[in-house]
Amino acid sequence: MPAQVGDRLADVDTPALIIDLVAFERNIAAMAEAVRGKGVRLRPHAKSHKCPEIARRQIAQGAIGICCQKVGEAEAFVAAGITDVLVTNEIVGGHKLARLAALARSASIGVLVDDPGNVVELAKAAAHAGSTIEVLVEVDVGAHRCGVAPGAPALELARAVASHAAAGLRFRGLQAYQGAAQHLRRPAERRATILRAVECARDTKVLIEGAGMACPTVTGAGTGTYLLEGNSGVYTELQPGSYIFMDADYGRNELNSSEPVFAQSLYVWTTVMSAPAADRAIVDAGLKAFAVDSGLPLVADRPELECTKASDEHGVLQVPIGAEKLRVGDKLRLVPGHCDPTVNLYDWLVGVRGGQVECVWPVSARGALL
Amino acid sequence: MPAQVGDRLADVDTPALIIDLVAFERNIAAMAEAVRGKGVRLRPHAKSHKCPEIARRQIAQGAIGICCQKVGEAEAFVAAGITDVLVTNEIVGGHKLARLAALARSASIGVLVDDPGNVVELAKAAAHAGSTIEVLVEVDVGAHRCGVAPGAPALELARAVASHAAAGLRFRGLQAYQGAAQHLRRPAERRATILRAVECARDTKVLIEGAGMACPTVTGAGTGTYLLEGNSGVYTELQPGSYIFMDADYGRNELNSSEPVFAQSLYVWTTVMSAPAADRAIVDAGLKAFAVDSGLPLVADRPELECTKASDEHGVLQVPIGAEKLRVGDKLRLVPGHCDPTVNLYDWLVGVRGGQVECVWPVSARGALL
Repeated sequence: MPAQVGDRLADVDTPALIIDLVAFERNIAAMAEAVRGKGVRLRPHAKSHKCPEIARRQIAQGAIGICCQKVGEAEAFVAAGITDVLVTNEIVGGHKLARLAALARSASIGVLVDDPGNVVELAKAAAHAGSTIEVLVEVDVGAHRCGVAPGAPALELARAVASHAAAGLRFRGLQAYQGAAQHLRRPAERRATILRAVECARDTKVLIEGAGMACPTVTGAGTGTYLLEGNSGVYTELQPGSYIFMDADYGRNELNSSEPVFAQSLYVWTTVMSAPAADRAIVDAGLKAFAVDSGLPLVADRPELECTKASDEHGVLQVPIGAEKLRVGDKLRLVPGHCDPTVNLYDWLVGVRGGQVECVWPVSARGALL
Repeated sequence: MPAQVGDRLADVDTPALIIDLVAFERNIAAMAEAVRGKGVRLRPHAKSHKCPEIARRQIAQGAIGICCQKVGEAEAFVAAGITDVLVTNEIVGGHKLARLAALARSASIGVLVDDPGNVVELAKAAAHAGSTIEVLVEVDVGAHRCGVAPGAPALELARAVASHAAAGLRFRGLQAYQGAAQHLRRPAERRATILRAVECARDTKVLIEGAGMACPTVTGAGTGTYLLEGNSGVYTELQPGSYIFMDADYGRNELNSSEPVFAQSLYVWTTVMSAPAADRAIVDAGLKAFAVDSGLPLVADRPELECTKASDEHGVLQVPIGAEKLRVGDKLRLVPGHCDPTVNLYDWLVGVRGGQVECVWPVSARGALL
């Protein structure tokens, strides 16, 4: 464990993942405020934090439950007392489906489908477990990842789900997540992309309802676009995850003046382990301490420094001419490029307020791949 | 746990990290054979596998011990009975140094230094623990990461180490790892780069010995270059790690006909969770199941497929026109871009032979960041 409650931040061992609790709490409150009165529910994505302590705080501020992406994550959250979990993923394979169906005996569990064969397997698992599973048809609203095409294919799959009502499947509506829109840099691009997604979701919902089926839920959205879906009149549920932490990549999104600004609250706390030249220092955090899929980290405390390279356990910082030199033992906060896979590298989140450790939370669903 | 001993590979839950034990054992034997008779010791880098079961197999085939990069890794290996561990890193901070020095009471522990202040701290920790620590001066032989410059700065630091003999520090020689050479694609480039590193190491060793100090160890090398250091007459110890597993990036290195070929033995075992279009399938492994710092994974079982994108828990495979379509539930082996940070995402390594699970090994030092 990198720290104990009461430790000074300066004494927290490195690399560690630290949360600026003031910014973190402000982010949770800002999201709650942003969706209030819009007639949409907030179901934050817990794949970003994998931490029941955080899920509890989100729910205390009005979230109706959480999303996650793996059965193992859902198990960790249910075990910690979270009672409403949507797995925003297709679950394939008998062993996983049996676990999912068993979990649905002790919590409200939702899952996505985009394949008729998978619906049959899911129904078998629910019947065997004697449980009820909420099922959403995933519609491809433009991201071209999973999901059936909008319109008739979605209706057909909704009917397939409904045909297994006796087995315990409940058709609840549509997953319509446009992941490809989240990191478009300009508000106008995000808006245009989400308007197309909204159209797909609306047309599909109308078609399903026109066929005489209820379609109460349309769920999706992320930190980059949640206001657009929230204002659409079509989406009933929003799934942003990263807003609690933020990261360097979300920080590159331009915002409209009307959008709340979420503050960076998550940092990799790191120590200078080598300062072999005036223009170069090496920190003790590398590829095993931050994800680089969305670029190298930023140096929060010394923005004039650039992280230029990372190997397994080393991060190389370039010190520009004239900038204050780093010394061995100096500690720095890095802003990870992408928060979700970075959190997954750690067993603990260290909450800090006023330079002191206030909490050390287990990342209970860390590595929950199955 | 993704599997039990005796399971068929087809039944191993996904995503899981699987080892083809035939290829793995051949790789261990091939490295032992490659260095035999060269008068150099083999000290494989355990940061690649973080697994005591593998370290034991390497030592059983002649390795003198292992390397790792973190105190926490060293603790995990010593706890598992490995008695000779070199931490190929500078260790900074009182808490970590105290742990390192304590560990040196129950095993032979080596560590690197490149800073005089750090030598003083290390000496204090050794004196306090009453232990003896083997110390190597890290020399920058061209990678421009950590390390003092070759020649006089290294001699000066060696003297600093030797001055703390009473406290328990033993100057043992030089760490001269040229990491930047490992993935140069052409043998001639690797050769030229390592020849410069050898020159730096030799000159520094000669200088230190000329000053009347023994410099018995010169250690370094990786999977891309170990034969060059092994044949140098200067290096006494080799630290390759990835050769046991290999990865897509090492697979892109061209080899001389005289170099042994290490076979890919490590795979991410994954399931098709969605096949929404003839030209696209989605597998259940993404950024939390493979590292992408060295590129996206290759599809071992269907090389005509290309992994074109990864998000947290999804990998997108492009199916070319005319290729056999993937179906939901199909399982595939992926070759990760970079083995070390991929292994760090898993708690278990599943050893497979003849289509059946033979062993499930814990990745004991997974996440050992401190």
